[in-house]
Amino acid sequence: MAESPSPTHGFPGRLLVFEGLDGSGKSTQAALLGKWLQARDYRVFFTEWNSSDLVSGVIRRGKKKNLLTPTTFSLLHAVDFADRFERTIFPPLRAGYLVVCDRYAFTAFVRDAARGCDPKWVRTIYSFAPRPDRVFYFRVPVQVTLKRKLASRLKINYYEAGMDLGLSDDVEESYVRFQSRLRAEYERLAESDQFTIIDSTRSVEAIQTELRGHLAPLLENFPTGAALLHDR
Amino acid sequence: MAESPSPTHGFPGRLLVFEGLDGSGKSTQAALLGKWLQARDYRVFFTEWNSSDLVSGVIRRGKKKNLLTPTTFSLLHAVDFADRFERTIFPPLRAGYLVVCDRYAFTAFVRDAARGCDPKWVRTIYSFAPRPDRVFYFRVPVQVTLKRKLASRLKINYYEAGMDLGLSDDVEESYVRFQSRLRAEYERLAESDQFTIIDSTRSVEAIQTELRGHLAPLLENFPTGAALLHDR
Repeated sequence: MAESPSPTHGFPGRLLVFEGLDGSGKSTQAALLGKWLQARDYRVFFTEWNSSDLVSGVIRRGKKKNLLTPTTFSLLHAVDFADRFERTIFPPLRAGYLVVCDRYAFTAFVRDAARGCDPKWVRTIYSFAPRPDRVFYFRVPVQVTLKRKLASRLKINYYEAGMDLGLSDDVEESYVRFQSRLRAEYERLAESDQFTIIDSTRSVEAIQTELRGHLAPLLENFPTGAALLHDR
Repeated sequence: MAESPSPTHGFPGRLLVFEGLDGSGKSTQAALLGKWLQARDYRVFFTEWNSSDLVSGVIRRGKKKNLLTPTTFSLLHAVDFADRFERTIFPPLRAGYLVVCDRYAFTAFVRDAARGCDPKWVRTIYSFAPRPDRVFYFRVPVQVTLKRKLASRLKINYYEAGMDLGLSDDVEESYVRFQSRLRAEYERLAESDQFTIIDSTRSVEAIQTELRGHLAPLLENFPTGAALLHDR
């Protein structure tokens, strides 16, 4: 059985993207779906945001010393993503894997827009990144993510609260305002980029079942690892 | 006497850019002109390419380990330039200085194009950088720069020879081919961006005299440091 190229990017693999606010449950769901696909004998490659070694040190230092403007902040994340895309995402995509991405370029689009960068400028920078076969957007009220955050007892991070934007001196207040900006951007993209919207306030099981249902048509003619090996 | 904003970028300072191949003599001329302007009591700010601390370490390591693709190579230099522009070039420009740049965004345009990046993509990335008031392009045959290089006894650098592009295994041969690509791009930009072309095969004195002549109309109503101080 031959692999047919994706109609969106032309490679034999498939690009499945999970997007949404921190605390929307997307990472849990992406990991569960990845394991389910592997158990069904598909060749799966799983990858997360911000995992490139190339510039992570610079981003950390730049943030710590407050050296970054919206432009350099945005460009540094673009280097990071380009490096990750070319060295981590692209090879398995070309080799026919189901590539599951916990966050993709859309995360940069919403964050950069929330920091005041021109969305068209940001889009052009990321034009090296092909359109995914499917984007699952985990829609969740900001207050729910805040509640989950506070329950987890993890400290709210300076940048995830958007404290660098001076929206409020109070961390929780700033978090809600900044995350609301991100959410508004996500909602805009959900329309323009035809995201598959997942209501993230339901149970883990209910969401996972829905995701598997959404994938069925995409997997229909997609070869499993065994089938591919058999062909060689 | 009030400072009138530049018609190209709207700030009270003036942006004077020197571009050309390595060994074209532009750095010598830029330094000489800067000193001459200072001696005439203008407030001058002089700046060179690749002087930002933010990502220089990453660029060095990435080059050494051959980790960079044309896309990440291009984006890293864009971060570097954005950082340099926002923290070094922009403040004196806004404050009414004559900012003399030894290389500007055009250096990135020619290098990225020579490495195969889409010129439109690169242009968009650098759209944060305003158009200079004057670009002096030092036109020189590639063979002349090679001769100067060899005479200087400095080793030809791996990247300035474009060795990463696999044009030739011979360093000098690769240097000539790569620098010829850069030169062709410069010639294209000289037309599209209305560079002032300086014939760089003449004597240092002849070129400096010509540069001063070119600046005369631009300096006519431009205040000197003393005049500004008097106004406060």
